[in-house]
Amino acid sequence: MIRIALAQVNPTVGDIDGNTAKIIEYIKKARDSGVDLVVFPELVITGYPPKDLLLKPSFIEANRRALAQILSETADIAVILGFVDHSDAPFVSNIYDISALPKKTLYNSAALLHDRKLIGIQHKMHLPNYDVFDEKRYFKPGTENRVFNLGKSKHNLKLGINIREDIWVDGHGPTEKQVELGAELIVNISASPFYAGKSRLRRELIAMRARANKVPIAYVNLVGGQDELVFDGRSGIFNDKGALIAEGEQFKECLITSTLDSAPITPPDEADRAEMRETEIEEIFNALLLGIRDYVRKNGFRKVVIGLSGGIDSALTTVLATEALGAHNVVGVAMPSAITSSSSIEDAKRLAENLGIEFKVIPIIEAVNAYTRMLSKEFKDTTPDVTEENIQARIRGNVLMALSNKFGYLVLSTGNKSELAVGYCTLYGDMSGGLAAISDVPKTTVYKLAEYYNTLKGAEVIPHSIIVKAPSAELRAGQKDTDSLPPYEVLDPILHAYIEENKSKEEIIEMGFDAEVVSEVIWKVDHNEYKRQQAPIGIKITPKAFGTGRRMPITNRYNE
Amino acid sequence: MIRIALAQVNPTVGDIDGNTAKIIEYIKKARDSGVDLVVFPELVITGYPPKDLLLKPSFIEANRRALAQILSETADIAVILGFVDHSDAPFVSNIYDISALPKKTLYNSAALLHDRKLIGIQHKMHLPNYDVFDEKRYFKPGTENRVFNLGKSKHNLKLGINIREDIWVDGHGPTEKQVELGAELIVNISASPFYAGKSRLRRELIAMRARANKVPIAYVNLVGGQDELVFDGRSGIFNDKGALIAEGEQFKECLITSTLDSAPITPPDEADRAEMRETEIEEIFNALLLGIRDYVRKNGFRKVVIGLSGGIDSALTTVLATEALGAHNVVGVAMPSAITSSSSIEDAKRLAENLGIEFKVIPIIEAVNAYTRMLSKEFKDTTPDVTEENIQARIRGNVLMALSNKFGYLVLSTGNKSELAVGYCTLYGDMSGGLAAISDVPKTTVYKLAEYYNTLKGAEVIPHSIIVKAPSAELRAGQKDTDSLPPYEVLDPILHAYIEENKSKEEIIEMGFDAEVVSEVIWKVDHNEYKRQQAPIGIKITPKAFGTGRRMPITNRYNE
Repeated sequence: MIRIALAQVNPTVGDIDGNTAKIIEYIKKARDSGVDLVVFPELVITGYPPKDLLLKPSFIEANRRALAQILSETADIAVILGFVDHSDAPFVSNIYDISALPKKTLYNSAALLHDRKLIGIQHKMHLPNYDVFDEKRYFKPGTENRVFNLGKSKHNLKLGINIREDIWVDGHGPTEKQVELGAELIVNISASPFYAGKSRLRRELIAMRARANKVPIAYVNLVGGQDELVFDGRSGIFNDKGALIAEGEQFKECLITSTLDSAPITPPDEADRAEMRETEIEEIFNALLLGIRDYVRKNGFRKVVIGLSGGIDSALTTVLATEALGAHNVVGVAMPSAITSSSSIEDAKRLAENLGIEFKVIPIIEAVNAYTRMLSKEFKDTTPDVTEENIQARIRGNVLMALSNKFGYLVLSTGNKSELAVGYCTLYGDMSGGLAAISDVPKTTVYKLAEYYNTLKGAEVIPHSIIVKAPSAELRAGQKDTDSLPPYEVLDPILHAYIEENKSKEEIIEMGFDAEVVSEVIWKVDHNEYKRQQAPIGIKITPKAFGTGRRMPITNRYNE
Repeated sequence: MIRIALAQVNPTVGDIDGNTAKIIEYIKKARDSGVDLVVFPELVITGYPPKDLLLKPSFIEANRRALAQILSETADIAVILGFVDHSDAPFVSNIYDISALPKKTLYNSAALLHDRKLIGIQHKMHLPNYDVFDEKRYFKPGTENRVFNLGKSKHNLKLGINIREDIWVDGHGPTEKQVELGAELIVNISASPFYAGKSRLRRELIAMRARANKVPIAYVNLVGGQDELVFDGRSGIFNDKGALIAEGEQFKECLITSTLDSAPITPPDEADRAEMRETEIEEIFNALLLGIRDYVRKNGFRKVVIGLSGGIDSALTTVLATEALGAHNVVGVAMPSAITSSSSIEDAKRLAENLGIEFKVIPIIEAVNAYTRMLSKEFKDTTPDVTEENIQARIRGNVLMALSNKFGYLVLSTGNKSELAVGYCTLYGDMSGGLAAISDVPKTTVYKLAEYYNTLKGAEVIPHSIIVKAPSAELRAGQKDTDSLPPYEVLDPILHAYIEENKSKEEIIEMGFDAEVVSEVIWKVDHNEYKRQQAPIGIKITPKAFGTGRRMPITNRYNE
């Protein structure tokens, strides 16, 4: 019986040398474990998504050289891995040569290597071009579903290989066709990014395909953070009845080995379906950890700095950073103004103590006063408004950036999805930073994550006072979020309907929300597009995050 | 002989009501001029590009209602215009319903209306999905090239309609097929964005298609600014020998009318080919004016505020804003620190006086001192570096944003393409603003534009001292750009090769540049991707601008 390994690895985009070394290391590890076939994820040589690096001919060439190097390491083992194949035909027949077009035709591809021979190449047939995906920008779809013979002697097996989307499309897809061609095993290589609940969706899907086609399926998914995306792994092998027989951990690099006759297993998160919602909170928490850790690590940072307001958003961000990077790599800074309550500073300090991170207090009153004097002539006959609030937020942003510039810390901004959606945040102020750790987390989920964490630790690491206080930007005396916004229990479902479900104003009002509230929320979402387009990248945890997955015009008069 | 009008109009994205009113107004105007057929640009009902508004079912529905309304206004005239057609078939057969996918199948389409009847619909066959274009994200390509009969009685004419890219693709394309089907006139409706030199390329292309197919072609292009894009119009009618017989102005809304037997004309910019480079500078200048004017106007602003450093970039930006919006809508602010030379303030003041704009001086020394004191404990054992420089730049950004918040001005940032490329700019500092007016203009072109403007005005509106001084960020005493960067005459061609031509490090060195300089420039370009992704949108004037047309990972170890 053939022994299969899924190499659920964490490559880095553009690091062709590093990724190649990792692939070769895993090939050796697999061979040492008596594995016959080791499978790597989609585009593992380049990392995913390589984006416009694919338009550089030298990059494609480097990827090809890496494949040749890996080939020479496949003595006595079969390897399937993702790479960029090309043909010399022009990609688009536009009459004028535009540098924006790849010079050659590229294919998102899988190579089957065996005993230092290239057995065959399968091109991806279905190219996702929605949400965060732009594969039709770079690739041509394949035209032929193939089946390969693996091993002439001891383990002869007919193999069909397909790539991510190929197994998601409904109807008579690549899997069905490959089985018709005689495939006895289907291998799907993927780079499928996380959102809450998606790994269960994937498991259902693969199981269903295996069952319907009466064929075992080995599914390998990438793991790791790449800018706004987190790849969550959870690769798995399913037998020809659709039963899961091996599975990789979520969010961790690992090598999963199994034979196709192994006994079915039950994944822990499926044990009790009723707990699914709690499982999703845990999953989001872990996705954010990996997203933060990999962004920091892969970009060469060690320490992060976070502004601690004493509120729940900065508390959660700090908790995540501490869990991701270790307490010694996190610096919390309270920056009180004349408006800041002493309880805010105390809460921030207590949180920092509980986490064991470095804590600084840098009062900003002097700078506030300096701006007031500098602008006194211009602002002579005006009354204080959001301008003065923004100045405070911007001074805080500047202080964090100064610490970043001086000491090489990465600034994590702390805004959540709800406030980013309605623009309840200051551009160049609290929006400053290299990574917006929780900018895809709705406020109501922020609370759940905070409570999950305290429960996990069995202690009030995030002080209770932070969790129960009324949300406030604390930029003017007595300010509350509800002065400007509906309560988050109302706001978040409206935002979900508008942003994730693309519902119209009318449809949302029909759901039972107040018409005026809905109109105002939608107006705010649309009119703050310019802020979001200057926001740091955030880690995607929902099916529809702000960022490359949602492409809205700034200049836009549609408001329904 | 049929009388044709090209309605080269300026719609606003999302403003379906406003665009519909404009279309109806132009239909009336055309009818009053005795026109038989009036042609509007691609997606004129929605504006272009509508981006993810297309994922909203209510938006598609509103566009359909607008078409019905326009239909009722076509008594005694034929109208061709762009709209979004749809069929109820699902767009993608992905097995799980993902909200990112349009619920219905959409087509980028042209409708032919005549005398209150819908004569026919042509779907776009070739969907651009490169550079700034994402049409495969939203649309399915058409499957049939059609030919329509226009007019039963007085002007019977067989008509082929195609849409932008359809006429660019090489080989046996839609135009060729429609001519085979008997088309006696080809109409191409476009939304083709500007870059320097492109309008001549288009003219050549259409002329060549007309000549090769022995068919007259009426080409209508959108005009107007939409976020980073400028549509430059210059619609034209070509006879069956490929001669231009009517042409619309560049960058202006207009109605162009002609019969197909009109005499050939020579466009002014083709009169002397040797002057092409100068023509391109003029063209860039006018594109920037339209881009600024439309961004300001369509987003509901009246006034802009600009930080005046006394340098060439802010001078050019201020000139452009003044020409675009009028002197009374431009506020210039000098923000001297202890380092600022008196000549810088004088130069800024002189420029403001020459332009007749409001000029303010807001010294930032107090704020600089406040930050110094606030950070003195943290920075105790450190030496001044880029941190202190950035603080000054950020204070200036904050002051401009405070004026914006208080008085409703839009901040125009002033950075050029060369410095944005290598990150020679301060995030949240001089990069602050709603629109980066010249962020696609290389520094060497900034000088040419400044000289073009002074020549145009026959006066030294931009003081000579601003043009000849050595470029400096003036953030530390005696600083010059050349302390950190190669001279712009060296930097700009390297950037062009790397960014616009996707050349490798090796290839650029082979062009004759110093290997160390090339390596450093490339390193800087790649390592400042995070800054560019937080930059305000800029107006595209080259084939490859930063922004949606160049999609690079931030986390990226490829550096060749």
